[in-house]
Amino acid sequence: MTMMILHNAVIVTVDPESRIYRNGGIVVEGDKIKAIGQSPDILQHFSHLAHQIIDLHAQILLPGFVNSHVHTSQQLARGIADDVDLMTWLHARIWPYESNMTEDDSYISTLLCGIELIHSGVTCFAEAGGQHVSGMARAVELLGLRACLTQSTMDSGQGLPPSWAVLTADDCIQSQKELYKKHHKTADGRIRVWLGIRQIMNSSDRLLLETRDAARELETGIHMHVAEIPYENQFVMDSRKVDHGTVTYLEKIELLQNNLLAAHSVWVNDFEIGILSKAGVKVSHCPAAAMRMLGFAPIREMLDAGICVSLGTDGAPSNNRMSIVDEMYVASLINKGREVYAKGSTDPTALPAETVFRMATINGAKSVLWDDEIGSLEVGKKADMVVVNPLSWPMVPVHDCISSLVYCMRTENIVSVICNGQWIMKDKKIVNVNEEEVISAAKHAASGLLTRAGITIPSRMNVL
Amino acid sequence: MTMMILHNAVIVTVDPESRIYRNGGIVVEGDKIKAIGQSPDILQHFSHLAHQIIDLHAQILLPGFVNSHVHTSQQLARGIADDVDLMTWLHARIWPYESNMTEDDSYISTLLCGIELIHSGVTCFAEAGGQHVSGMARAVELLGLRACLTQSTMDSGQGLPPSWAVLTADDCIQSQKELYKKHHKTADGRIRVWLGIRQIMNSSDRLLLETRDAARELETGIHMHVAEIPYENQFVMDSRKVDHGTVTYLEKIELLQNNLLAAHSVWVNDFEIGILSKAGVKVSHCPAAAMRMLGFAPIREMLDAGICVSLGTDGAPSNNRMSIVDEMYVASLINKGREVYAKGSTDPTALPAETVFRMATINGAKSVLWDDEIGSLEVGKKADMVVVNPLSWPMVPVHDCISSLVYCMRTENIVSVICNGQWIMKDKKIVNVNEEEVISAAKHAASGLLTRAGITIPSRMNVL
Repeated sequence: MTMMILHNAVIVTVDPESRIYRNGGIVVEGDKIKAIGQSPDILQHFSHLAHQIIDLHAQILLPGFVNSHVHTSQQLARGIADDVDLMTWLHARIWPYESNMTEDDSYISTLLCGIELIHSGVTCFAEAGGQHVSGMARAVELLGLRACLTQSTMDSGQGLPPSWAVLTADDCIQSQKELYKKHHKTADGRIRVWLGIRQIMNSSDRLLLETRDAARELETGIHMHVAEIPYENQFVMDSRKVDHGTVTYLEKIELLQNNLLAAHSVWVNDFEIGILSKAGVKVSHCPAAAMRMLGFAPIREMLDAGICVSLGTDGAPSNNRMSIVDEMYVASLINKGREVYAKGSTDPTALPAETVFRMATINGAKSVLWDDEIGSLEVGKKADMVVVNPLSWPMVPVHDCISSLVYCMRTENIVSVICNGQWIMKDKKIVNVNEEEVISAAKHAASGLLTRAGITIPSRMNVL
Repeated sequence: MTMMILHNAVIVTVDPESRIYRNGGIVVEGDKIKAIGQSPDILQHFSHLAHQIIDLHAQILLPGFVNSHVHTSQQLARGIADDVDLMTWLHARIWPYESNMTEDDSYISTLLCGIELIHSGVTCFAEAGGQHVSGMARAVELLGLRACLTQSTMDSGQGLPPSWAVLTADDCIQSQKELYKKHHKTADGRIRVWLGIRQIMNSSDRLLLETRDAARELETGIHMHVAEIPYENQFVMDSRKVDHGTVTYLEKIELLQNNLLAAHSVWVNDFEIGILSKAGVKVSHCPAAAMRMLGFAPIREMLDAGICVSLGTDGAPSNNRMSIVDEMYVASLINKGREVYAKGSTDPTALPAETVFRMATINGAKSVLWDDEIGSLEVGKKADMVVVNPLSWPMVPVHDCISSLVYCMRTENIVSVICNGQWIMKDKKIVNVNEEEVISAAKHAASGLLTRAGITIPSRMNVL
């Protein structure tokens, strides 16, 4: 196994003691962190064993970010549904787009999305539920990323495209079990397969219960959109006879468990926050998408209740920027501003930078049930790391390291990324694919797909 | 006068007909736009006269953005006041910082801020009121930017640093008149000097009235923080005997006029929106700073009432990112989300991309009283322009040009900037200063200034 030393770095470990080494060094052996400490100590003990010694020149080394909710197969749909109401978004744009995808479209879409994820310092993501998991898996394996992949799963509901409307709960479970068999723990263990539920309005009770049981049997996670809009809660109250919405119903059928990753969870009341916390459910907060389409999730209250809240970008037609760097910035801003809505005045001390930074790292790892191996820089964990250059215009001067990483840092500052001990971006260059070729293929695929799906986007100005 | 042609560009003009040329060309003669149209026509009529012909290879050409509220002398203070309450922010961090600045600090701070502004496509800014206008002017002249510069002006109020507390209204007016005389219309006409009022709680009535009269006499604008927090309105109601806050009082003393640029204006009621509109007052919306410290400004309502609303970043300790590119993104998000606060549900159609784009361009120009010369690409206007490369990972695929510019574009995509007919950034390289030298000087100056001001920032994690 090869050994590499990175030294002369500000290392933000996010370990249980929240240690930051001002002049730190780290030893990577194979895919794991072998040692971490002060640079001189690391160099003294490991230099003679190392195959490579890299001076980071006072740059910052972080754990790789985790994006806990992203639709990789929607990347080619960026910009097809901006500034439209929710029904147009879903029925006239997203469903026609997704139902016309080929596996190759999904592969190219995930490659393009993956490039953006890597440029924003993400080493691990949770697919939110999309089309053609085999296409996604091929892209993730090639890019060198780590991922929990999930199929978009629906067996009921109004207005579904014909090819989806015929699927039964059993079909959905069967196809996911096949994907699990084919892809789980592949790509040197970087890929895991989860079960998906797109949302409760497109799920029969049979699908919900079989998903719960299959996840238990396969020892994997469930990724589900939960309590996104008030109408969803009303629908559940009307159709399932409970007194408040999706979370309350999921508890009733014992789906609230510690392997559930609940995305958005905007419209939850205090009682539901309590039962989410008690069950150990993880929440993926997607601040940008929430502002565009959903509303203010009670993030401060969830964190206060002990819920593990992480950060997600959602898909490109819900947000446009697939960057956890920007989500940290936006999460901080809107959750300070939200205090006006919740309590009558802003609170600049709400969700401080260190809290937001943990949401993007260790809480992300917990959300994808992988914190035994990722989410912090600790001996024995996988080497998933990001090199940040703070010495350029977006961050200078750095008076407060953590707040600078959360509020100032931009994707420009992220220079190199390591996943599973391997460089996947080095000096801004994506290592395993040719970025220009992917962009060119993506433009071609996107244009073909929109034509097949019959989607046209009206012009906003007077194009000559 | 030299003549330059840029052709083979998508030109978003923001002219009164909202024209976009899919394959456009533009002729720049000296500091002005001489012609604009379809590329073949432009080439046919002007090629034989041009000194330089540049093929933009299908990149996008935009009017330069206007940042209508930025404290350039606060750039060295980025990160000194994150996640602290408002009183700590002001009394323990910002005032000690500003009152210990030298003119050289202001010069370096403005250089550093200007580099960030240029990288984010800004060609013109309105200084929000800061220290040592002569230092700012030197930096603006060197960088090649266009600016309305304003001194921070206060003559009363609690807790002021001793060197400021001695100033009278007459001192404040006198020093601003001197700055006007020295710098107004300098730097080839790129610099204008405005009058400033920091905020009503630090202004005597005499200062307010003399400022109003001096602006009339000098035919220039007034830049003032207005209705930032509920306490300010309460203070005005108590001390000035009006029934609702700053805007109501400013109308009473005839300060609401079309040369007033009101920053933030978060806490205004429907009546006040009406009188702002009637008076032709311009509003600078700073979405990020508002979310951090102030609350939700009623932007949709102001736009509906016909108020000219533009975008500002505010200063580095209020926001951290000095980028109009990010403010467009954040403005769109929070004003969609705000509908939950205002009306009970989000509205994804609120503040559509074309509205936000106009706020950053033509409305910015109107806000700084300069729309006869900037804010759109039209024959006879100054050549203030930005070249955007949409063919890289943050923007691909571009299905909807305007929404892509507002929601996807990052500073990475901004490759070149022209101000007053001169390149001030070319292929990502700042033309008129050495970026590395400025960064190095800024780090040194910031560190010295914080020491002099006795400001220390507590550590958020366990630094070893």
